[in-house]
Formats: sequence, C-alpha cells, structure tokens
Amino acid sequence: MNAKIAVLAGDGVGREIVPEAVKILKAVAQKYHHTFEFVPGDIGGQAIDKVGVPLPQETLALAKQSDAVLLGAVGGPKWEGLEYSLRPERALLGIREALGLYANLRPAKVYANLVDASTLKREVVEGIDVLVVRELTGGIYFGKPKGIEKLPNGEERGVNTEVYTTDEVRRIAKVAFEAARKRRKKVTSVDKANVLESSELWRKVVIDAHKSYPDVELSHIYVDNAAMQLVRNPRQFDVLLCNNMFGDILSDEAAMLTGSIGMLPSASIGAKVGLFEPIHGSAPDIAGKNIANPIATIASAAMMLSYAFQLDKEAEAIEQAIVKTLDLGYRTKDIQSPGARIVGTTEMGDAILRNL
Amino acid sequence: MNAKIAVLAGDGVGREIVPEAVKILKAVAQKYHHTFEFVPGDIGGQAIDKVGVPLPQETLALAKQSDAVLLGAVGGPKWEGLEYSLRPERALLGIREALGLYANLRPAKVYANLVDASTLKREVVEGIDVLVVRELTGGIYFGKPKGIEKLPNGEERGVNTEVYTTDEVRRIAKVAFEAARKRRKKVTSVDKANVLESSELWRKVVIDAHKSYPDVELSHIYVDNAAMQLVRNPRQFDVLLCNNMFGDILSDEAAMLTGSIGMLPSASIGAKVGLFEPIHGSAPDIAGKNIANPIATIASAAMMLSYAFQLDKEAEAIEQAIVKTLDLGYRTKDIQSPGARIVGTTEMGDAILRNL
Ligand SMILES: CC(C)[C@H](C(=O)O)[C@@H](O)C(=O)O
Ligand SMILES: CC(C)[C@H](C(=O)O)[C@@H](O)C(=O)O
Repeated sequence: MNAKIAVLAGDGVGREIVPEAVKILKAVAQKYHHTFEFVPGDIGGQAIDKVGVPLPQETLALAKQSDAVLLGAVGGPKWEGLEYSLRPERALLGIREALGLYANLRPAKVYANLVDASTLKREVVEGIDVLVVRELTGGIYFGKPKGIEKLPNGEERGVNTEVYTTDEVRRIAKVAFEAARKRRKKVTSVDKANVLESSELWRKVVIDAHKSYPDVELSHIYVDNAAMQLVRNPRQFDVLLCNNMFGDILSDEAAMLTGSIGMLPSASIGAKVGLFEPIHGSAPDIAGKNIANPIATIASAAMMLSYAFQLDKEAEAIEQAIVKTLDLGYRTKDIQSPGARIVGTTEMGDAILRNL
Repeated sequence: MNAKIAVLAGDGVGREIVPEAVKILKAVAQKYHHTFEFVPGDIGGQAIDKVGVPLPQETLALAKQSDAVLLGAVGGPKWEGLEYSLRPERALLGIREALGLYANLRPAKVYANLVDASTLKREVVEGIDVLVVRELTGGIYFGKPKGIEKLPNGEERGVNTEVYTTDEVRRIAKVAFEAARKRRKKVTSVDKANVLESSELWRKVVIDAHKSYPDVELSHIYVDNAAMQLVRNPRQFDVLLCNNMFGDILSDEAAMLTGSIGMLPSASIGAKVGLFEPIHGSAPDIAGKNIANPIATIASAAMMLSYAFQLDKEAEAIEQAIVKTLDLGYRTKDIQSPGARIVGTTEMGDAILRNL
C-alpha cells in the first residue's frame, strides 16, 4: 500500500526517538512492499521557537492531508513560563480536536522480561494487560462555559464544564466493545455515577450500547475504586472505558504499574487520520544524550500499522522484533537490569531493526 | 472536658466497628477524666429503611448540636437499585454540605508491621506517610449547572460544573499548610492547570496563600503525574493538596498503596462540628460476622480527639495502643499474616482497650 505519514517529532527526546521509529517503518515498507512517504512537521516548543505558535496551520494542514500522524513528545522547561494558550501542551489538545480524535487507546502491558522494573510485586504485575480506552475530545477538557471570572467582591471564580452527550458516549463505548472483542472480552466502564449526573448519563448510554455486544462482558466501577483496584489487582481488568479526565489519570496510573513507561505506546483515532505517540513525555533532562528509550515510539508505529492501515501482520512483526531484542538482553538505561546490555537510543533502534 | 458525640454507625460493618471505637473513647474518658456523651443517630441505608431517607432531619439536627460526629459507613446492595437522590451515598454529600465540612484529611500511613500487606515492594512502601488534604464541599461535586437534559434531536446531555472561588481554594490551602507545619513541611498541590482554568485559578491562589507559610515548601503536580508518582515513589509526598474530585481518586489510590485500608481513618472538618470516619466502606460481604477490622474507626476516634477536642495526648495514647496491639501479633482477617493471632472485631477492640 501507499501511505503518507506526518512525522511530528516535537521536543526533547521526541527528536531522537521518532527517527528510530521511522527507521523501523522504512524497513517494514521495504520488507513488505509498501510505500510510506514521511513528511516532517513542527509541533510544540520547537514550533513556538520557529513560528510563534505550538500548532502551526501548516502542521495541521499536513496532518489532515496525511494518512496517519506519528508524534514524539511536546514541552519542556523552556516554554513553561508562557501563558497557557501558547504552551506546547495546547498543541496536543488542538490537534486532537481538529482531527476529531475522540478515542485514545492506551495499552498497559508488561513485557515478561521487565516485570521486575515495577514497584509492585512480581506476582501482582506478571501478565498485566489492560487497555485504557479514553474519550479524548469531550468532557471537562473541552466543555463550556470555562474560564476565570472576576466576582463583584474582587475575588475570582474558575469554571470548567464536564459535559457528555449520548452520541459522544455511544461512539467511545463502541470503540471499547470492539477492542474487547479482539481481547479478553471484558469492558469495565469507569464513572462517578453516585455523584455526577454526567456519569449517570455515561453509564446509561454504555449499558445501552452494550446491547449490540452480548458476547462482551460489561461491568461498572467508580473512579475512586478503579484507582484502588489498579493497585490491588490490575490483572482483573481487560478494557477500561473512561471519560477524558478519568482516562488521563487512570491510564497514567496503569502505565506506571508496569514499571516501564518507556515501553508504552498509544493510538488516538476517530475520524479519518489517526495519531500515534508514546505515552511518555519529552523528558528534557535526558534529551540529546542518546539514552532515551525508543521502544514506546516504535510500538506506536506498530499501532499505526494495525489501526490506521490494517497491516496487522506487519504490526505483529514489529512487536515480535521488540520482544526478541529484549530477550537478547538489550536494554536502554530506563529499563536496565543486572547483566543486561545497556545501549543507546540509536543502538536500540538498530537492534530492533536487525530482529525484524 | 465535656463533649457530646453523635454516633452514626450506618450500614454493614459500620454497626460493628463503631461500637468498638465508642468502647475505646469511653475508656479514654474515664482514664483522662473527660465526660463524653454518645448519642446514636440514623444514616444511610438503615435510615432509608426506618424513615425513608438516607439523611433524616433529626440526624442532621443531632449532628449540628453535637461537638463531633463519629460515622461508620453507609450503603449496600439492598439500596443500590434506588434512584440516585435516595441512595445512601447522598447522606455523605448531604452531611458534608450541611456541616460545612470543607476539609477532608486522609492520612495514608503504613504500620511497620503491615508493610507486607501491600502489593508494592517492601522498599517502596516502608515509611509511606502521606496526608491527603481534600477539598470536600466544592468543585464538580456540588457545582451548578448540573443535570441531564433532553436535546432537540432526542439525545441527552449530562452536565456537571467544576467551580472554585478564590475563597474556597484559599481556605483549603491554609488547612494543608497548617497540617504540613506539624509534619515534614512539604505541600504538593495537585491540579490540571495545563488544561483546566479552574485549576489555573487553584494554582494561583495556592501560590498566593503560600506567602504566609514561608517555612513550608510548596510544589505543584499535574493530577495524572500524581497518580503515577504515587505508584513510583509514594514516599516523596508529605501533604497532597487536592480538589474534591482529584482528592477522591488519589486518596483512594494512596490508601491502597499501604495495603491495609482497614487501618485508615479520616477527618472532615471546616465549620463547627467535625466528622470522623474510616475510609473503607460498609463491606456488606463481611458484615455481621464479627470479622471486620475496627482499627480504622478507632484511629478515626483518635483523630476526633485531636482535631475536634485538641486532646492530643489522648489521641496519641490510642495510636500507641493500636501499635502495641499489632506488635503483640493481633490481626483481624484482612491484615492476617503467617504466625499472627487472628481475632474478631470485638476481640481486636478489647485488645486495644487493654493496651491503652
Ligand atoms: C499534556 C496534557 C494536555 C495531556 C492530557 O491531559 O491529555 C497528557 O497528559 C496526555 O495524557 O496526553
Ligand atoms: C460515596 C461517595 C459519595 C464518596 C465521595 O466520592 O466523596 C466516597 O467515595 C468518599 O470518598 O468518601
């Protein structure tokens, strides 16, 4: 197949890890006879430096004309002083909204070799395989009214609005049920229906959407209990269906349980063009040193192949190459262990390439 | 001193653990020459069964005329089918609002003897001592507009409003700074200021309130990162200052890290009358079997002595009695370990009484 891929490396380690994923994608293209065109674009802090805004119009135009977007990471101390509307993070919110990426898929899986990197006991961590399905373009992230207003008494009032419509909940619920069908067929929907009306609607619509998926088991959990249960027994979960805010929190918690967030990819899908990025950030403290772990980004490229291009075999090949490379003892610094072979960013990319 | 204590045992194990705490409070009164009057009231499911509502007017009147409230737990499967406004949980929200309990203090501390009960590795858990200071009468829990409305196209829309005023943030920030002064003098304020305007205001006001507490160290963390860092290295935190929703989630996560939520107390304070309750729920599955752990409630009684009555010495005596009882090997089922002496609810209460 032919595909055009927008490559937005962004800031910090993004500039080092994205080239490794591109390297792997090129090898896949050659091996499986596809033609991928890679077109770079600016995003985040480096876009601010270059053109004054974190998400330039050209970048958005490029993304819209592409078949998929590969993103590195955005942000860093250099841009933290800026007012909120100009901060690198705004580029993420902007591109999600502009591309209609309402479904964020964040698998938190433990690689057998890396179980000991977790702060949790081996017997709790072994075999964790949770997919967080997070609604990404609604809820309190985008709801209106929002803002800070002056009160008559001189004080201020900060407001955000959590809002979901039937339609928004139904479409993300479907994504979760479909995903569950390819996995262990269990969806746990997270809400706070004992307090929030928006959650009451959420639960009602999820129950309704479930009628078309009788083969999938559905249960409901309050968000506070979910935060607990992830620590107590993360293996009980298959697909965790969350709104935007709860998904932000729980997907990060779930990721950290695995002990190796340098390994975890994500996919944001919805309308035409999907976006694929590692869940870790720009890690400015280790940027430019060739020590960042490129695996999360390479795994994100695999998700791109599978979700954007339906190239499941090719995606599988990348995942197997990652596992094999770990089996051979290759480790970046963040996942080092006694006796392992510590390599840099490019060396890890090369090793995975060889094992493809 | 003389004090009138409203005793709201509530549902499930609440009915078994609260009497144990009352037993201890009576012993303290005798030993230290205080006069505590205990007045029982109805709340939660048992109040629904008795008078049709989860928070009867008489209970509220009783609470308001008391010097402190000791609560067990509310809820159970029996009342889960009820419409939301009649559910036991509503009693909690109602009593918090009516008593003006804007500050919820939830210590998550690990008892040296119980480190191994955690799913986390010993070296990560040992010495955890986090105090979550959660805003309890504002934010998305109470903000308006809220509700579910029909849309012209026949679909529905669920809305809740996250709202904080300068004043609400300032008073809870002060509670956190004051608490930090009696601890390790570090406050970490949790927000999502990179996305939410309500959080932007929250952060601004916290920074401002901090000016009166130069001896306390203040830092800020995004809620998603906080959920991660609690798993990665919970010992880095002293006081975690949170809004209502984030505090709900993170305090439960923090509690579960300790591995023994049957041990953890809470205090809700603000206006005149404080409320003290274990953080665990009504645990209907083990109710009525004399196996529930009364320690969280007994520790809540200790918090009452210290926060409501300034009886720090007496509070300390209860805490030491708990530690001593654990040291002697007494365990309820939830915290059992090899070689320990498994006892029931009343036996645990008796043992702590003896060690007072
Ligand atoms: C940077 C921030 C806006 C973003 C979010 O909250 O969605 C990030 O935390 C994420 O999860 O991708
Ligand atoms: C039962 C529920 C309303 C309550 C809350 O969300 O505040 C509970 O989870 C708590 O934390 O005390």
